[in-house]
Amino acid sequence: MLKGDKRALSRLMTYVDNRHEDLMKIMKEVYSHCGKAYRIGITGPPGAGKSTLVDKLIHAFRKQKKKVGVIAIDPSSPFTGGAVLGDRIRMTEHGADDDVFIRSLGSRGSHGGLSRATRDIANLMDAFGFDIILIETVGVGQTELDIMAVAHTTVVVLVPESGDTIQTMKAGLMEIADVFVVNKADREGADRIFAELRALVEMASSTQKVPVLKTQAISNKGIDELICAIENISRENKAGLKGLLKEECTDIVLAELHQKLKAEMEGKGMFTALVKNLAEKHHNPYETAAEILEKIKVK
Amino acid sequence: MLKGDKRALSRLMTYVDNRHEDLMKIMKEVYSHCGKAYRIGITGPPGAGKSTLVDKLIHAFRKQKKKVGVIAIDPSSPFTGGAVLGDRIRMTEHGADDDVFIRSLGSRGSHGGLSRATRDIANLMDAFGFDIILIETVGVGQTELDIMAVAHTTVVVLVPESGDTIQTMKAGLMEIADVFVVNKADREGADRIFAELRALVEMASSTQKVPVLKTQAISNKGIDELICAIENISRENKAGLKGLLKEECTDIVLAELHQKLKAEMEGKGMFTALVKNLAEKHHNPYETAAEILEKIKVK
Repeated sequence: MLKGDKRALSRLMTYVDNRHEDLMKIMKEVYSHCGKAYRIGITGPPGAGKSTLVDKLIHAFRKQKKKVGVIAIDPSSPFTGGAVLGDRIRMTEHGADDDVFIRSLGSRGSHGGLSRATRDIANLMDAFGFDIILIETVGVGQTELDIMAVAHTTVVVLVPESGDTIQTMKAGLMEIADVFVVNKADREGADRIFAELRALVEMASSTQKVPVLKTQAISNKGIDELICAIENISRENKAGLKGLLKEECTDIVLAELHQKLKAEMEGKGMFTALVKNLAEKHHNPYETAAEILEKIKVK
Repeated sequence: MLKGDKRALSRLMTYVDNRHEDLMKIMKEVYSHCGKAYRIGITGPPGAGKSTLVDKLIHAFRKQKKKVGVIAIDPSSPFTGGAVLGDRIRMTEHGADDDVFIRSLGSRGSHGGLSRATRDIANLMDAFGFDIILIETVGVGQTELDIMAVAHTTVVVLVPESGDTIQTMKAGLMEIADVFVVNKADREGADRIFAELRALVEMASSTQKVPVLKTQAISNKGIDELICAIENISRENKAGLKGLLKEECTDIVLAELHQKLKAEMEGKGMFTALVKNLAEKHHNPYETAAEILEKIKVK
């Protein structure tokens, strides 16, 4: 993979999907080749036109001769797994471009599985040699917040119809956004949303004002300005993701423990009797949990 | 608390918030008094009118002389914690009613913290003696899916404007919903959404067809029909949540391990040197994770 073999890259990504037993060892090696790619998160409610925006961003970055990896995430699709989502199809025109690689991710269950998988895939793409990694996800809830911790810069995409979202999710939006985009800005109400976001940004106490931009992705309007805003942030943001190393490490440890615990819960390990009583005799789950925790020791 | 002291109930809920060291022991005891309450999840996108619907459901259940506990969750608000959300205020008219108890929950970080807290609070309410527990949450992503596993029956609330949500989140919606509600059904486009949902339900392979209802919560229309649909499901659903005991137990164990690991990561435990190198020398997080996992043993 480090020599630029795309099939090797794909194969390693299925290792991430299946949580292959050698994954930890491989990712440890892969990580030492990371650090060159710039990771951009794109998030927002369904119907905000994120996929179109990502499509146009790919075009713009390709004009700059940059290699682009895309991770398209739908946390709400428990059934899609690694499958290609419907609206990914629009991006297949990039499929012929050897310097664009698109990967879809569906739900990975709870306990940080999705943010862990996203991180691994992004690290693989980074080590492979992509200059830009676009991470697109639907929604602005806790899962998305976790996923966006993987990005250097996060773009929150809204539309004129997103007034309710802004009202309900104020704190969450401000927590997550490095750039706000009002897409479909030719529609009625765009100015109102734009003003609301500006007011929200003004109110925030941070010294660094979050830029608010208008785009019409479908007709390529505002894309250059968006890239310019992202590049400005990237210059200020050199320190990058170093501050997140502890979270990353915690994520990895918990994901591994979760994996082991799941196998145990299927009755394949040392807790067989405990699990059997839980399921068949409807034991108290807090009691069983305490008994399991008793057996896990740090030496 | 078991004697009906509401102040004791509130105090135990702050134990859940702070993850008090005695919580496991207390919840083990509490759990043995659980099993009487019926737990109803209410979820849907922001602006769907869920709070109004919950308000009307409280009224309707109170007319049946049932005691009602409400857990209002906003997974996207990392800052609200246990604080009362803005639109909770509308519910304060129930504040004078001794048989209604409303509790807000904000984000609890990743790794299942929110579903764990929701489960604990629901168990406390159940043991306290509430007949109905309404669990309201914003969104239909992975976090909400996890939270809704705590409910016997889940109502997904949409509005005529939710066409995009339905298109994007088909699989997630079908996974989660026991009842679909089209609220604000007097608005334009209600019939179209209603037909789309019916088509979605027809396509699904399950033998049990998910009912699709129309409501106008604000003028109390369709509420009795909704309660009727929920009661029908509750009769078929006697087995309840027993199948989820393993997930519940896994949740509890992981939450405790996460808690311990977080303390470790703050350099207060046995991994001090490892964590210091990670943060200061920017060590490889996969390597540090492997070293930590080495030290965790099951005996």
